Amino acid sequence: MEKLLNAVVENNRIWTKQGTVASYIPELAKANGDALGIHVMDVECNEFYAGDFETKFTIQSVSKVLTLICALIDKGKEKVFSKVGAEASADSFNSIVKLETRNSHKPLNPFINAGAIACISLVAGDNGIEKFERVQEMLKKMANNQEIQVNYQVYQSEKLTGNTNRAIAYYLKGANIIERDVEDVLDAYFKLCSIEVTVKDIARIASVIANEGVAPWSNERMIPKEVNQIVQAIMMTCGLYNASGEFAVKVGAPAKSGVGGCIMTVVPKRMGIAVVGPSLDESGNSIAGTKVLEELSKKLEMNIF
Amino acid sequence: MEKLLNAVVENNRIWTKQGTVASYIPELAKANGDALGIHVMDVECNEFYAGDFETKFTIQSVSKVLTLICALIDKGKEKVFSKVGAEASADSFNSIVKLETRNSHKPLNPFINAGAIACISLVAGDNGIEKFERVQEMLKKMANNQEIQVNYQVYQSEKLTGNTNRAIAYYLKGANIIERDVEDVLDAYFKLCSIEVTVKDIARIASVIANEGVAPWSNERMIPKEVNQIVQAIMMTCGLYNASGEFAVKVGAPAKSGVGGCIMTVVPKRMGIAVVGPSLDESGNSIAGTKVLEELSKKLEMNIF
Amino acid sequence: MEKLLNAVVENNRIWTKQGTVASYIPELAKANGDALGIHVMDVECNEFYAGDFETKFTIQSVSKVLTLICALIDKGKEKVFSKVGAEASADSFNSIVKLETRNSHKPLNPFINAGAIACISLVAGDNGIEKFERVQEMLKKMANNQEIQVNYQVYQSEKLTGNTNRAIAYYLKGANIIERDVEDVLDAYFKLCSIEVTVKDIARIASVIANEGVAPWSNERMIPKEVNQIVQAIMMTCGLYNASGEFAVKVGAPAKSGVGGCIMTVVPKRMGIAVVGPSLDESGNSIAGTKVLEELSKKLEMNIF
Amino acid sequence: MEKLLNAVVENNRIWTKQGTVASYIPELAKANGDALGIHVMDVECNEFYAGDFETKFTIQSVSKVLTLICALIDKGKEKVFSKVGAEASADSFNSIVKLETRNSHKPLNPFINAGAIACISLVAGDNGIEKFERVQEMLKKMANNQEIQVNYQVYQSEKLTGNTNRAIAYYLKGANIIERDVEDVLDAYFKLCSIEVTVKDIARIASVIANEGVAPWSNERMIPKEVNQIVQAIMMTCGLYNASGEFAVKVGAPAKSGVGGCIMTVVPKRMGIAVVGPSLDESGNSIAGTKVLEELSKKLEMNIF
Repeated sequence: MEKLLNAVVENNRIWTKQGTVASYIPELAKANGDALGIHVMDVECNEFYAGDFETKFTIQSVSKVLTLICALIDKGKEKVFSKVGAEASADSFNSIVKLETRNSHKPLNPFINAGAIACISLVAGDNGIEKFERVQEMLKKMANNQEIQVNYQVYQSEKLTGNTNRAIAYYLKGANIIERDVEDVLDAYFKLCSIEVTVKDIARIASVIANEGVAPWSNERMIPKEVNQIVQAIMMTCGLYNASGEFAVKVGAPAKSGVGGCIMTVVPKRMGIAVVGPSLDESGNSIAGTKVLEELSKKLEMNIF
Repeated sequence: MEKLLNAVVENNRIWTKQGTVASYIPELAKANGDALGIHVMDVECNEFYAGDFETKFTIQSVSKVLTLICALIDKGKEKVFSKVGAEASADSFNSIVKLETRNSHKPLNPFINAGAIACISLVAGDNGIEKFERVQEMLKKMANNQEIQVNYQVYQSEKLTGNTNRAIAYYLKGANIIERDVEDVLDAYFKLCSIEVTVKDIARIASVIANEGVAPWSNERMIPKEVNQIVQAIMMTCGLYNASGEFAVKVGAPAKSGVGGCIMTVVPKRMGIAVVGPSLDESGNSIAGTKVLEELSKKLEMNIF
Repeated sequence: MEKLLNAVVENNRIWTKQGTVASYIPELAKANGDALGIHVMDVECNEFYAGDFETKFTIQSVSKVLTLICALIDKGKEKVFSKVGAEASADSFNSIVKLETRNSHKPLNPFINAGAIACISLVAGDNGIEKFERVQEMLKKMANNQEIQVNYQVYQSEKLTGNTNRAIAYYLKGANIIERDVEDVLDAYFKLCSIEVTVKDIARIASVIANEGVAPWSNERMIPKEVNQIVQAIMMTCGLYNASGEFAVKVGAPAKSGVGGCIMTVVPKRMGIAVVGPSLDESGNSIAGTKVLEELSKKLEMNIF
Repeated sequence: MEKLLNAVVENNRIWTKQGTVASYIPELAKANGDALGIHVMDVECNEFYAGDFETKFTIQSVSKVLTLICALIDKGKEKVFSKVGAEASADSFNSIVKLETRNSHKPLNPFINAGAIACISLVAGDNGIEKFERVQEMLKKMANNQEIQVNYQVYQSEKLTGNTNRAIAYYLKGANIIERDVEDVLDAYFKLCSIEVTVKDIARIASVIANEGVAPWSNERMIPKEVNQIVQAIMMTCGLYNASGEFAVKVGAPAKSGVGGCIMTVVPKRMGIAVVGPSLDESGNSIAGTKVLEELSKKLEMNIF
């Protein structure tokens, strides 16, 4: 397996030359566009890695999976889906158009920025700090790593430049989708996006989802089965922004990408995979990461269909 | 199993009172909104049915699955995806907006009207008649039923009133997505939508897909494995119009609906299911049909995640 | 003339029963929907009035004309039109869609909320208070009334509930259309909308514009001639939200409406007219006010074409 | 005056180097981008011209003014505005988006393609040929030129490549905005766009409108006064596609442009002006033509505000 991973990483390293590192905030632009690393953890607790697996990166939108899990656990699916839809968006992840043109003003799904902001306001906690801590605790538990921390440079940078997200949040407040103090909710949002991780952390998180919500290393149930199914369904349909369908065609497994360059992939009942490659395509997904997963999907027969 | 199906149909018959039968063409409005029938065929060739399983209905958008299969077999995935995307649409199935606003002018996916019209133009055949016959033959083969025919009243009605589809097709021609005579392509489209079937036919088609492209009754490979995976991925992400994500959350299996009231569902490696219930919700999906599949998904553990 | 005004008001009083008073903020909902008043001031300083001419109302979007005048005077037309367009919007006055879908992200025109917010940030002044005072001074001067004041109930109410405007302002900041502190700019915006006036004040403002920028009562030039022409051109094309064209067809003169129920109308080289009637149509324009102006346009041959 | 016109043309000839000749149909691409000509006819029948005033060009969208005049005369304003709006469009002239997203499905105004097609279907005549002849007769009468003819190369080219217009027309038929045979209406539309004229013809047409609907050379009333006012109001608000507001700001007079490079301008009660300069900006308006009119507006005080 490790040999296979090494081969696949090297086969696709050439793709790191395509695309560009996210640069909407200065701190993100410092990421190493040449990096390409992978970590796999299967449901029997075996771990494999290859390439630049030690690269640190901010979790960005991959955190939206954790936020959704917490919102579903804390408030239940009826409440969550009364505030956010479950439909893929053909628009950019920070688009505001559909908020206005849809009669309900509900964000299309929990994995676009608007949807994640709505979910954060649903997570347990009396204020942004408590909400952030709720999701961060879940993340540490699922990653089996208590050392995980926020990258404060990135967080400050996000906070300073996040005016489009601020626009989205105030629009949601105007439409009664979120009820709390907007800056408080946004603070939790920016902090969650800025959590620093490695592919090992993310692969472990994915392995819990792959193992039906139960941690492979402790047999502890971390996510109720139904929540675990819902989250995978939304990863399948909405996980890679407005290129989710293409990924489903090419890889055929639930996944979630982030502009830090990570793609978390779940192979149900088999394994969790995390790839990092910070050079992104126009939709905001790692180019080399997608290529690695495409090749791996064929070689490991990961396609669930 | 048959007992279970009977129970599930009766449990959900009340939902046939909700919604309305499709009425955009007069012939469709004649459908019986109270009907609710189901047919299941598993990959070991066992067949089960319940409710109004003998109800005849026109296949409508379920035919888009067959058209996509033929286009992929006849032209290959590169060519097909150069003319049509693979992303779910948050707009109505006959929306024209995204054709204009996306730079490529490509239809978002093969299961909205624009995408199906583009796929028909890719299917083998020198004209609309040959293209229609190509897809109809595939349908007869996969349904294991040579008696299948077009309902000519519906076809005439579609043809007479199909001006929005005509607008879509001319727009695609103006954008060089389709190259042929528009009326010829549309004629095949209208005829394919008007094919009359029962749930038995559709369940068998689904069983071939569930069985990795091989007919359970003859072990004949009808669909190449990769095409079969692609089709399921697109059913999963785009199969129920702009409610595809919600269905993925509730049922968790690849499916395709039609405004005739049918929902074809594939349980990979296990079975094909067809439900019919002509009363539709706002998105154009059978209300009772969705409810039946939701209950069945829990009872049969159909959710693939 | 006064007889004519009385007759026209009474002829159209029935229209005050149509439509509804603006209610997006509680304070506005208290307006008297039955009121209908008019005041005319010609360029020879004659004044005429009829109906409920003493009704007090908040100026709302009519203030956008004053803001535009100040921005053009303070920064010049090149700078102003580098930040805001001059095209009518077919969308609602608080729509955010076109901000995202237009490549420039510029607000379509200075009379939708986004455009007015952008103009306020251009008005002279180091902060929101100074900017507010700059525009308010111009307003007092053009209305020849130093007693004009902000209605603080309305202002507080606007500020509390103005989340869609907040969303617009943060979007503009994210797109570098406005550079200042968003809350500071919004504070000036909300205060300007909340200035309390009567039709007499507004008719005088209109008479200055009608008299080529020169106050009829003092012969003081208040607005440079070119600015005065630009402002009328934009009133003509964009003055009544997304019903501006219809008003141009029916009345044929530059005008600006506000959700307080006022319509300010300029008859170039002849007179300024203000009508108030708080019952609004779907676009946010006074129904009875429009009817009064339509009749008056025929009787006084106000149509400039 | 002729000296002035010569100077203005030569001052602005440099602008013919900017932009590009319309090329969406091959025949239009043959136009001479360097040409710049002007013709003025005042309401006392004086005529002046300068530059390449003998250039022949196809009338294109300027014909939409004639179509609107005929529709208003033949069916009345209530009927016309029940099928088409009077609001400027911020989208391209051949956009289809707003047809779908507006509840009424009415074209925004008579000067975008959708609106003109709707107006043609309202013009008197039992079929496309009669409708075409009705409008062409009006055009010949207003231009005081019986020799005017269709350019059949352009017409054939329009007809062959006009699929986006075909899409628009079928969409309108699907929405019950037009009731007739689509190809028949389109045939009249394409033929009207292909009428070949010179600036002399167009200046005369404009002079009739400027003279309140009465031909200056014969004192014959050609257009009822109210129709004449409506047409100018729509020229003012919608005459230059999605740059109408900018033109109103810069020139301040009712006008209508066409992709053949012509801009027809009306100076109410004074004169009609036609400029031709086939190099177009992104909105489809003549760049040099706009510059000529801008300079002329200042020198002749044409601005109506």
